[in-house]
Amino acid sequence: MNETHQERLRSLRRELHSYPEPAWREFHTTSRIVDELERIGVDQLHIGRDVLDGEARMAVPDDGELEAWQAKARAAGAREDVLDAATGGFTGAVAVLERGEGPTVALRVDIDALPITESDGATHAPAAEGFRSANEGYMHACGHDAHATIGLGVLEAVKESDFTGTFKIVFQPAEEVIGGGKAVAESGHLDDVDHLLAIHIGLDHPTGEIVAGVDGFLAVRQFRATFTGESAHAGGHPAQGRDAVQALATAVQNLHAIRRHGDGATRVNAGVVEGGTATNIVPEEATIEGEVRGETTALKEYMNERADTVMSSAAEMHDCEVAVETMAEAPSAVSDDALADVVYDVAESVTGVTSRLRTDDLGGSEDATYLMDRVQDHGGTATFVGIGTDHPGGHHTPTFDVDEDSLAIGIDVISETVSRLSE
Amino acid sequence: MNETHQERLRSLRRELHSYPEPAWREFHTTSRIVDELERIGVDQLHIGRDVLDGEARMAVPDDGELEAWQAKARAAGAREDVLDAATGGFTGAVAVLERGEGPTVALRVDIDALPITESDGATHAPAAEGFRSANEGYMHACGHDAHATIGLGVLEAVKESDFTGTFKIVFQPAEEVIGGGKAVAESGHLDDVDHLLAIHIGLDHPTGEIVAGVDGFLAVRQFRATFTGESAHAGGHPAQGRDAVQALATAVQNLHAIRRHGDGATRVNAGVVEGGTATNIVPEEATIEGEVRGETTALKEYMNERADTVMSSAAEMHDCEVAVETMAEAPSAVSDDALADVVYDVAESVTGVTSRLRTDDLGGSEDATYLMDRVQDHGGTATFVGIGTDHPGGHHTPTFDVDEDSLAIGIDVISETVSRLSE
Amino acid sequence: MNETHQERLRSLRRELHSYPEPAWREFHTTSRIVDELERIGVDQLHIGRDVLDGEARMAVPDDGELEAWQAKARAAGAREDVLDAATGGFTGAVAVLERGEGPTVALRVDIDALPITESDGATHAPAAEGFRSANEGYMHACGHDAHATIGLGVLEAVKESDFTGTFKIVFQPAEEVIGGGKAVAESGHLDDVDHLLAIHIGLDHPTGEIVAGVDGFLAVRQFRATFTGESAHAGGHPAQGRDAVQALATAVQNLHAIRRHGDGATRVNAGVVEGGTATNIVPEEATIEGEVRGETTALKEYMNERADTVMSSAAEMHDCEVAVETMAEAPSAVSDDALADVVYDVAESVTGVTSRLRTDDLGGSEDATYLMDRVQDHGGTATFVGIGTDHPGGHHTPTFDVDEDSLAIGIDVISETVSRLSE
Amino acid sequence: MNETHQERLRSLRRELHSYPEPAWREFHTTSRIVDELERIGVDQLHIGRDVLDGEARMAVPDDGELEAWQAKARAAGAREDVLDAATGGFTGAVAVLERGEGPTVALRVDIDALPITESDGATHAPAAEGFRSANEGYMHACGHDAHATIGLGVLEAVKESDFTGTFKIVFQPAEEVIGGGKAVAESGHLDDVDHLLAIHIGLDHPTGEIVAGVDGFLAVRQFRATFTGESAHAGGHPAQGRDAVQALATAVQNLHAIRRHGDGATRVNAGVVEGGTATNIVPEEATIEGEVRGETTALKEYMNERADTVMSSAAEMHDCEVAVETMAEAPSAVSDDALADVVYDVAESVTGVTSRLRTDDLGGSEDATYLMDRVQDHGGTATFVGIGTDHPGGHHTPTFDVDEDSLAIGIDVISETVSRLSE
Repeated sequence: MNETHQERLRSLRRELHSYPEPAWREFHTTSRIVDELERIGVDQLHIGRDVLDGEARMAVPDDGELEAWQAKARAAGAREDVLDAATGGFTGAVAVLERGEGPTVALRVDIDALPITESDGATHAPAAEGFRSANEGYMHACGHDAHATIGLGVLEAVKESDFTGTFKIVFQPAEEVIGGGKAVAESGHLDDVDHLLAIHIGLDHPTGEIVAGVDGFLAVRQFRATFTGESAHAGGHPAQGRDAVQALATAVQNLHAIRRHGDGATRVNAGVVEGGTATNIVPEEATIEGEVRGETTALKEYMNERADTVMSSAAEMHDCEVAVETMAEAPSAVSDDALADVVYDVAESVTGVTSRLRTDDLGGSEDATYLMDRVQDHGGTATFVGIGTDHPGGHHTPTFDVDEDSLAIGIDVISETVSRLSE
Repeated sequence: MNETHQERLRSLRRELHSYPEPAWREFHTTSRIVDELERIGVDQLHIGRDVLDGEARMAVPDDGELEAWQAKARAAGAREDVLDAATGGFTGAVAVLERGEGPTVALRVDIDALPITESDGATHAPAAEGFRSANEGYMHACGHDAHATIGLGVLEAVKESDFTGTFKIVFQPAEEVIGGGKAVAESGHLDDVDHLLAIHIGLDHPTGEIVAGVDGFLAVRQFRATFTGESAHAGGHPAQGRDAVQALATAVQNLHAIRRHGDGATRVNAGVVEGGTATNIVPEEATIEGEVRGETTALKEYMNERADTVMSSAAEMHDCEVAVETMAEAPSAVSDDALADVVYDVAESVTGVTSRLRTDDLGGSEDATYLMDRVQDHGGTATFVGIGTDHPGGHHTPTFDVDEDSLAIGIDVISETVSRLSE
Repeated sequence: MNETHQERLRSLRRELHSYPEPAWREFHTTSRIVDELERIGVDQLHIGRDVLDGEARMAVPDDGELEAWQAKARAAGAREDVLDAATGGFTGAVAVLERGEGPTVALRVDIDALPITESDGATHAPAAEGFRSANEGYMHACGHDAHATIGLGVLEAVKESDFTGTFKIVFQPAEEVIGGGKAVAESGHLDDVDHLLAIHIGLDHPTGEIVAGVDGFLAVRQFRATFTGESAHAGGHPAQGRDAVQALATAVQNLHAIRRHGDGATRVNAGVVEGGTATNIVPEEATIEGEVRGETTALKEYMNERADTVMSSAAEMHDCEVAVETMAEAPSAVSDDALADVVYDVAESVTGVTSRLRTDDLGGSEDATYLMDRVQDHGGTATFVGIGTDHPGGHHTPTFDVDEDSLAIGIDVISETVSRLSE
Repeated sequence: MNETHQERLRSLRRELHSYPEPAWREFHTTSRIVDELERIGVDQLHIGRDVLDGEARMAVPDDGELEAWQAKARAAGAREDVLDAATGGFTGAVAVLERGEGPTVALRVDIDALPITESDGATHAPAAEGFRSANEGYMHACGHDAHATIGLGVLEAVKESDFTGTFKIVFQPAEEVIGGGKAVAESGHLDDVDHLLAIHIGLDHPTGEIVAGVDGFLAVRQFRATFTGESAHAGGHPAQGRDAVQALATAVQNLHAIRRHGDGATRVNAGVVEGGTATNIVPEEATIEGEVRGETTALKEYMNERADTVMSSAAEMHDCEVAVETMAEAPSAVSDDALADVVYDVAESVTGVTSRLRTDDLGGSEDATYLMDRVQDHGGTATFVGIGTDHPGGHHTPTFDVDEDSLAIGIDVISETVSRLSE
């Protein structure tokens, strides 16, 4: 990759970085991606309701919130056609290159940002070099700006290569809330895909290191439990109350006490709790926003069932009701050996690659698993590729940043893998 | 009361003290009481199944246990006729004096001992003076030996008095396990009673002090909850187990966390817990023996309902079953003002009485409440009279003892009250 | 009391009702009270820092909040001299009538409102008759508008009576947050008082009923516990977190499980809980706003000590820190028999009194107890008088209202008691 | 292996099976092993205190218990010299063959039985064929009878082979309580060992299957926590008690709620709980016998530290004291690839081996890990070999049994591995 090209990638990534948009609100980001797709030239371009199965979207904010971000994107210069199509949070895009006979290969990148206030410290490059977040309180703190950039770079490289077959690229919204993967999977765009590549930058791997097939995805369910009791004066009539906070406390204790499982790793967290209105009132309502995870989808289901039982019996114990709703959910997935082997092999000869790992554990959750499972269910193969990058702060921290040298490495590894798959 | 008489009472009390028998096993004690009743001479004498409603007995030990104590009593010289009648734990006696027209007045005394090993310290009078418990591990640590003695003394005094009417005396078994009161109440012996007197010695009141109408009886329910889950190897297959000890722990925590009640005092205790078989096995079974109490029967019911809910939902939470059985139960009761006023009034002129209290709180439970409630339900009045005695150790401790000077005081207060009631 | 006078009282009460101000923000209310005090004419008039011991105030809002309400009161026409004196939340007033030799008698009324949105229903008199709260979200839902009115009425009546001695009246701020009583007590104004009367309207007693000496004040402490742990990714590194929500849950469970006390009633409530930031983050911070109460100050202290232990060990259990701060506190108190007897006696002949109770239980907390304890500690007597009023909604509900006929009854009972005390 | 030899092995195994002795009480078993060792002829034979580091033994029963089993073994015909040496529970044996220059290879087998009552069902071979346990209540329910038999078979085979070097065999006591491994490790017998083989039969692998290098040993600590509070009458003075059962319940709940760890599997179990004396007494004492485990020794330490904190703060929370003692403990261990590869290779050509696994997870704990770690720390290699056997009931169940055909397979695989190691 020449210097000019690299400069262009860096510049694009910085532009995306400076305008972070959270899940389902990637209006401006989608607009910029569409600009680039048109510049590159593709055979099919899908936006809006053509990208997603609307019923399958999860964790979509309310209309007011969506409209506010849409208006902000408009004010920042986003394209009207994209804004129109994306109304109601139908962000993201799918583009297709049709290059004759050959396999259908797909790449999935995600594009959303996080509700984190970016560092303005002197040692934080985006701050020092002028591309810190313009949307105060939001930040590309997980590298999805780099993902979108790599995606566009791969598309351009594939277009210029001798690849034959069909190449699809998915710019997926709402990964951070585990909300978009299912909607892309159920759109059907991937049903004819022979090989799916999904990527993630960083993950504590340094620049130059490639993980050919990441595993260890934890299946996950995020839920909100609302306990409802009855208020009463805590001094005069304590027993007339039905205490939602006692139900909450019993539930939190027993969620963590769900027995570990012999088949593999499980997780549980009561991440956000809230309840009650006044010191001297028996609390009428209380909520837990929490999650369970499992090393496999079955283990997640085990946790899920136990968690539901814990919450219903905690409510019953304190004479309360509870409603538990799923906020988001993702299965586990496994990278295919055959496909990961190709990536591993290709990486050996890519400039800048100094270390290759055949596999490594993610130890977290990702809704790319919906896409991987979908492709595998339809007979294709999938792998999740880690692209190392030196990152000063950890993922999801205010000082996260990527080493822009890793952009070209990522593009080369993926585009050469795509080419190899048509041989 | 003359010196000879007092000496006889002291001697009887010491004899009873030296042969303590626990609940439903008062074979020898009943035999001795019957001896005395015959000596005094009564118009009716009921023993065995004539004393108790068999269905209403609670906390009766198993047959083997009953037979062992029966055999021991036989060996110690108990009367065959009494032993026969009392087979199966039908201990206790009811005697009646018929003295013509007039009110029916009843006195209830209890006769069982406790599973406590009596002190053999040099300062403990029964040990020093040779009437310490002959039944090692059991002890009259609550003064029921004195109660039986006072009862017999009152009977004798009433017989010698100018009382007209009917006088009944109940020697009730199994008070310590709250097991006998209901069975006496449901026998019907008290249904025609106009005035019921029940007594207790001590209760932290010194010799010479009389409490005319004790109140503050806590209604109580004692229960045994058995949680059943499923065992599994705790290392290899922890999630295959259903953990009865986790259910137990959740239940204990939440039993104590039952909300206090605005209407009055409540109590809860998980007195005995047990569960599991081995360090590395998920526990399959666990039990709680506990109790709830309330200042009123309604408050006890509140605690009861909440406790049942806590235990069933604790079981459900950990995928276990639970069976909860009532071991014993007693209601609350209130001493009648009118009757307590009579006692208070009478006490003023009794020799030895140096202090009178119109009322005081028991702060515990007593199954005399079944008898009091029964009499009141049938239109009679009842009061529970406290007879002070200097007691070196607290009730239910190995050094408990009574001041024998209080025996005569108690007899005089009660027998003079009985006489007064016929005026 | 003649019709004109009654009309004036009703009108004043409605005016106060229409401008409710919450604790420490009673700027306009104080201004109106001072107007009335000047109209009536008193020998001493204390406002601002002369009323309160600044150090002893509790639960004072921050400066911004105070200034906003002060500005609002100014806009609504409050007097500059009062606003100046009350800067920083020094609201309330003390007035003194000096009438020669005789006892010093004091009356305490409270003047603050609640953060409750008043009903605008057609059957809610203040809404129907045009004196509903002008401060949306705030409401005189506990009758302190009537208390202030009765206070002024009593002052006027005492002035016109043949009372000899000194009469003091305290218009106390911030009762609802248990924040003002201690500051008044420690001001010293009551140290020479021989007899203190405090009043409360309603309390489920109907118009025409008087309670001469309310008892059953629960001593109370309100606290805020802040647990601090350490956040971590709940999927990848759950054990690197130190979970403040687990500490919170353990604390809530065990606060409720503090053993009941044999000496009397206790209470505990975890009224408001909050913690954590995201479903997938181990929560770093969590707070409990709660309270403990006791039938006596000693019982409150028992609960307090146990609660502190529970919270510190819950924090320790989950490797967190906890800081517990007292938000507000009040002791228990007991109405003096001698003084309550006077009220009871006086009430018999007051027009409109149809029912007298010698005593009744409050079953809640009140910081008048600080004043009662202070007077009693200095050798005086105190009683808390309940003045019945038909109230459609319960105290602290949006439809609470008072029957204005009870204003005159309250004024007569109290003012005649004051007169009687100088005889 | 010829038929006669196989018959002899079967017969020895049945003899050992019929006389099961639990941990540290393997008096008769040791005696029989010594008989066999003498029959075979070894160059060194260690028994009693020469086998074990006395200080390092764990979970040793009290003297009375040891003496009872010693006397029983004597009565059953055990040798006096062995009984003498083993006094105080110094059971087990170490034997050495010195065969000139070459590596030192060791084999460890364990010899203790379990406190399980053996099935007497018609389909349970030991019952049907007359070699069911003669020590009622105890049973070789984990195949250690087969282990001892295989050990002796291997020794004989090695002696007859062309192996050059030193061969050591350890007959280890007290594996089932995780009590003997450390004492053997610290005896020093293994410090010069180049290659250590440990074996286990069964583990759900069928006859004919060999696992060359078992992994997944969970490091473990078993503990006993004794909570001490203060008793009180639960009705009268509930707050005077300090409730050890409440401390227990809080501890159990929070032990299970120790956060899962991102580095690997952890376990926790409260296997046996007990507390309190009577329904109406606040419990003064309560105990938990439990365990924590970790996939690595570090993870076990994490659990250990957290568990200690949970128990001390649970005690503190309820104003109790707690003493936590370690009953037994074992580290994790990893089979060496190089050595397991040899076993895997050898197994290919052993008659009867129909399936080979290079590795498998134990998912439990074993104190062979002490020996493996010791050898590895001294520069040697170690592997834990699984020898499949069809077993009708699961390990540690009353119907467990081994397929005796697997004895010869195990002997051949191990003895040929030993020979191969000297090549």
